[in-house]
Amino acid sequence: MSSTFGKIFSVTTWGESHGQAVGAVLDGCPAGLPLCEADIQAFLDRRRPGQGKLTTARDEKDQVRILSGVFEGKTTGTPISFAVFNEDQRSGDYSEIAKWYRPGHADLCYDLKYGFRDYRGGGRSSARETIGRVCAGAVAQKFLAQVAGTEFLAWVDSVGTIDCGKFDTGTLTREKIEASPVRCPVETFSEKMEQEILAAKKDGDSVGGTVKLLVKNVPAALGEPVFDRLDALLAQAMLSIPACKGFEIGSGFAGTRMRGREHNDEIYFEDGKFRTRTNNAGGCVGGISNGADIECRLAFKPTATISQSQKTASRDGENGELAAKGRHDPCVAVRAPVIVESMAALVLADLYLQQKRNCL
Amino acid sequence: MSSTFGKIFSVTTWGESHGQAVGAVLDGCPAGLPLCEADIQAFLDRRRPGQGKLTTARDEKDQVRILSGVFEGKTTGTPISFAVFNEDQRSGDYSEIAKWYRPGHADLCYDLKYGFRDYRGGGRSSARETIGRVCAGAVAQKFLAQVAGTEFLAWVDSVGTIDCGKFDTGTLTREKIEASPVRCPVETFSEKMEQEILAAKKDGDSVGGTVKLLVKNVPAALGEPVFDRLDALLAQAMLSIPACKGFEIGSGFAGTRMRGREHNDEIYFEDGKFRTRTNNAGGCVGGISNGADIECRLAFKPTATISQSQKTASRDGENGELAAKGRHDPCVAVRAPVIVESMAALVLADLYLQQKRNCL
Amino acid sequence: MSSTFGKIFSVTTWGESHGQAVGAVLDGCPAGLPLCEADIQAFLDRRRPGQGKLTTARDEKDQVRILSGVFEGKTTGTPISFAVFNEDQRSGDYSEIAKWYRPGHADLCYDLKYGFRDYRGGGRSSARETIGRVCAGAVAQKFLAQVAGTEFLAWVDSVGTIDCGKFDTGTLTREKIEASPVRCPVETFSEKMEQEILAAKKDGDSVGGTVKLLVKNVPAALGEPVFDRLDALLAQAMLSIPACKGFEIGSGFAGTRMRGREHNDEIYFEDGKFRTRTNNAGGCVGGISNGADIECRLAFKPTATISQSQKTASRDGENGELAAKGRHDPCVAVRAPVIVESMAALVLADLYLQQKRNCL
Amino acid sequence: MSSTFGKIFSVTTWGESHGQAVGAVLDGCPAGLPLCEADIQAFLDRRRPGQGKLTTARDEKDQVRILSGVFEGKTTGTPISFAVFNEDQRSGDYSEIAKWYRPGHADLCYDLKYGFRDYRGGGRSSARETIGRVCAGAVAQKFLAQVAGTEFLAWVDSVGTIDCGKFDTGTLTREKIEASPVRCPVETFSEKMEQEILAAKKDGDSVGGTVKLLVKNVPAALGEPVFDRLDALLAQAMLSIPACKGFEIGSGFAGTRMRGREHNDEIYFEDGKFRTRTNNAGGCVGGISNGADIECRLAFKPTATISQSQKTASRDGENGELAAKGRHDPCVAVRAPVIVESMAALVLADLYLQQKRNCL
Repeated sequence: MSSTFGKIFSVTTWGESHGQAVGAVLDGCPAGLPLCEADIQAFLDRRRPGQGKLTTARDEKDQVRILSGVFEGKTTGTPISFAVFNEDQRSGDYSEIAKWYRPGHADLCYDLKYGFRDYRGGGRSSARETIGRVCAGAVAQKFLAQVAGTEFLAWVDSVGTIDCGKFDTGTLTREKIEASPVRCPVETFSEKMEQEILAAKKDGDSVGGTVKLLVKNVPAALGEPVFDRLDALLAQAMLSIPACKGFEIGSGFAGTRMRGREHNDEIYFEDGKFRTRTNNAGGCVGGISNGADIECRLAFKPTATISQSQKTASRDGENGELAAKGRHDPCVAVRAPVIVESMAALVLADLYLQQKRNCL
Repeated sequence: MSSTFGKIFSVTTWGESHGQAVGAVLDGCPAGLPLCEADIQAFLDRRRPGQGKLTTARDEKDQVRILSGVFEGKTTGTPISFAVFNEDQRSGDYSEIAKWYRPGHADLCYDLKYGFRDYRGGGRSSARETIGRVCAGAVAQKFLAQVAGTEFLAWVDSVGTIDCGKFDTGTLTREKIEASPVRCPVETFSEKMEQEILAAKKDGDSVGGTVKLLVKNVPAALGEPVFDRLDALLAQAMLSIPACKGFEIGSGFAGTRMRGREHNDEIYFEDGKFRTRTNNAGGCVGGISNGADIECRLAFKPTATISQSQKTASRDGENGELAAKGRHDPCVAVRAPVIVESMAALVLADLYLQQKRNCL
Repeated sequence: MSSTFGKIFSVTTWGESHGQAVGAVLDGCPAGLPLCEADIQAFLDRRRPGQGKLTTARDEKDQVRILSGVFEGKTTGTPISFAVFNEDQRSGDYSEIAKWYRPGHADLCYDLKYGFRDYRGGGRSSARETIGRVCAGAVAQKFLAQVAGTEFLAWVDSVGTIDCGKFDTGTLTREKIEASPVRCPVETFSEKMEQEILAAKKDGDSVGGTVKLLVKNVPAALGEPVFDRLDALLAQAMLSIPACKGFEIGSGFAGTRMRGREHNDEIYFEDGKFRTRTNNAGGCVGGISNGADIECRLAFKPTATISQSQKTASRDGENGELAAKGRHDPCVAVRAPVIVESMAALVLADLYLQQKRNCL
Repeated sequence: MSSTFGKIFSVTTWGESHGQAVGAVLDGCPAGLPLCEADIQAFLDRRRPGQGKLTTARDEKDQVRILSGVFEGKTTGTPISFAVFNEDQRSGDYSEIAKWYRPGHADLCYDLKYGFRDYRGGGRSSARETIGRVCAGAVAQKFLAQVAGTEFLAWVDSVGTIDCGKFDTGTLTREKIEASPVRCPVETFSEKMEQEILAAKKDGDSVGGTVKLLVKNVPAALGEPVFDRLDALLAQAMLSIPACKGFEIGSGFAGTRMRGREHNDEIYFEDGKFRTRTNNAGGCVGGISNGADIECRLAFKPTATISQSQKTASRDGENGELAAKGRHDPCVAVRAPVIVESMAALVLADLYLQQKRNCL
């Protein structure tokens, strides 16, 4: 069941870039949560293409329809079915791609796996598959906001070699992030990143980037020991996003250069709660949330599909060259934040419901 | 089912540091694989404590018993049950820890989660839990070696600030790795790392490190699109190892600084097979293995339990200090390689069996 | 994940009687199976209401749309999404039902479970939910026909006290079954059953019935020992159909009155195959198919919703009477056969794919 | 994962009749439940062989050991590992069986499935596998007794043609059931059943029987709509018990002969609770418990292994005869009640924990 994620709050996505529609079924959402299509649409609008010169020119409204699971404005506890019908498909753009494997792209692997593939727009490996995740993730965010006041913030931390570095996230809001065309809330860096992306685009090339995730008001005690640790599931969730090649939580790779004394977050008790003075753990110790903010960083490689000519092989084993046409994002990190939030919310909602039954 | 990993080749681990035994049940291993206790023991011996001055002084033989699933020297297709009975437990060492939460350790989170905890030796969060994983992983390695000649190599890449850097892995063998007391096959760095660890130990402190994983002869087409991507499951598997805080595959975080043209691995066809000239992908494109080597890097934070005195809080909300006694590894990375191999083998064996049914 | 069935060949259904649509997502179908909407429609047409005076007057075309997972007439190995939009909904018919609990119906239990319910047409407990199962089951039947020539036949065996008894099933065809308005292929009994149903309908009442299932050309070795036995999964599958209250396989309850000598099916070897002279096992021994025909019998209780007045209680705890309006089948067994076949095919397709990996 | 049952309260059994041990791992049991080995032993003692002339002469103490998951007399929320070491194995008894397939037994199917089998004592298809279920079921019964006062009673309802019929179960206790050597609480019938079994045994034959299950104080709202209905999971659970060939709940097959008016259980509200005047539903409507007693009936076929000579085929395809030696129960129904209770308790405990998260 590769298309299903979560054990209780469980989403199954379906759909290809150039099929009739894409969507998802969310099973296991508790009954009684107020929900309407506009709740979902707000998140989809942050994900959709055609938002400016930094993203693909493919123009999609991405209008969501809720086909089941909601009655009189509330979830009923039964599966919620989402569908977004595809509109702006230009299958003609993809004829060359049917023959030549794009380097860095999943084309070859799909053929190796299934014997053939839907070559139009990447089929199932297209970023359009993430629409279903954003639909379900929007419900997860709404659910966690209601039961725990949990808040998800994700932004672009670096583009190519432009890194915005550390800044005070105390006053960070989603509005500030979304006000930046590259979704970097630090204005000076936002502009430099924009230049970096446009330079790559002008060259018919693409560029990589990193995204940071901050989750506030995380309930303590989420995460199951051993395999379904909170950090392990977040890692799976993030690496499952197309083009993600790395994940770290808290001090991450930098923390490996530290001594234990320095790294350990001092625990103290105040106002009826256990807290830590630092957060090298990134909110997760032993795979379980300790109530501090969750802090992660993710690596997104440069977009595989570029318009520059590249050497590659064909389905028939001919070695040659391909200059991909079609419309593609020059930097996938820019549209990633809402997907990152969605996946994190799906993990936390599922673990929240799992935790409800751990004690008598 | 937090203690179960894998959908077909599926392992369930059980046991605490100071319970009667630790072990695992491996379900879904195909029938007919030659298997005996010595096959498993070879892997457990690489994991066990008491191997020298770099690891905990706790001395355990860790003798495995196979209780089911093998008949006349071959797996029967039914569950294989492994048990390792605990021997050298000194519960007395842990009395202080029952009261004071160790900073950086799972103590507090277990109490938050379950209302109380088995405080002896970390209970379920102890590294002894990984014994069950190594048992099952040994079977997975044997299975993959037989069906595909797959080979797993993991070694310590850095300790604290000592980083062995890139070296030619073409002639690397498990013997070379295991010949180093820190499991770094580059001799000059191995010695420096050893000094780094002993220096930390002398200070009653600990130090972090990174581990690299290389998998050769990986069958192509493993990994399921969307959530059960090969890289996503490897990330979950690795982050599920105690003290692991980061994961990257192929170019990872460094790859985010590159352009697409540079990053894309050129595909060519030779000798009846599709290959790539570089391996920035780390053997995994679109979540599916392309037949190239899998290359990953993992971050392990410094061991949480140290003998230096640290400020912390007690179960009752008293703020005070704790100097942990007990016997602990000063650098967990040193014993991690066999666990890393085991988890990778479990992921690949499961995806191998899943792939068997993807085409008519 | 109550709405998902199957571990590899895995279906998730969604939708309510009076929502926008009902449907299913089928994940894990192998790539390369020829499939089009007409393949599915043929099965849905056998399930749909409005087929005559024996079924509900609700008239639905039940036109299926395949929204994903098929490319150039073949399955791609990725999720197949089915949707059937609802048409003939008369919500006005259900106003009384919002207040009074129908005896024998799921109304009360849904309220107890979720705190409220979609009272229109039974919501998720409506027989319309089975549309998604029939869509996925049609693919399962096509898949098994192609790989093993497997054939599914289900028919009405009794209605009320009219029981058609044993007859020669050697020449039975789906056409013969479907030619009968009650789906009983024995003509004389078919007429008696029809009278029985019409008599109940005239009285504003309903009547129960039994359905038999025969599966031919079943591959041997399907079914996993212990919990996922073939017969155990068939039992779950059948009892999951609305109104089903009993299941037996092979000799079933009658077999409990026999001695072992009489009951044991003699094994013999002929033409390169192990066979049995009798089939008291119903094709399943130790939870595993032995290659003989699968034979089951299922009990369907009388339809709960009837137009006669019945004593019952209201949501508010008032005790009173309800005479349900609305349009309902007087005997649910009549439309059950295609659903029974679908569920059996889903079980067998899943176990077939599971079996592919049991040996080296 | 054929050896795992339950999604949250989840048991994995392992072990063969003639391996070193049999056992189970129970994952997902909430923390804080008082538990010791004696709690389990009481249930195992009801299951064990060697209880008299009605069961196999194989004499096993079946002493359980809890290897993990319990600390200071309480469950910790982590996996509970049970092991029972095998003692009285006479492998010599089984040499003939290695060659000749027992009619009605799983021998042939295991060979077809895995290519070979552990022929000693039936291997994994042995009734000894159910020891693991009884261990986990004992915990489930204790858990449900504590949280809801739920009580499980199972007894032998018929043996061969001797049927004890309906009797008043209002004052039925487990003690009364266990006082009968055949586990039929109606004294006159108990004696007749005993004669029936001894007559079959004397003939070197076996006989079938039925078991009834009654569950009192069932929490309402248990069971998930669609596939994980309470009755569907009970059916799977029961059919997964060796030799079980049929299941019915409430009115079952007899109910198919009734009209709806007669069958529907009248609902009324009294003392703050919704109740029904009759219980044709058997405590389950729309797949969800309504708070009434659960009532089921199960069919067990005659034991396959008999000492009379039977025609059969050998592994090599030779047609011949087999008179099985070894020690076998002449009527498996007699030892079934505690297994039936265990499986029912596992289903209910899992659904109880699932239900905890269905509402906000």
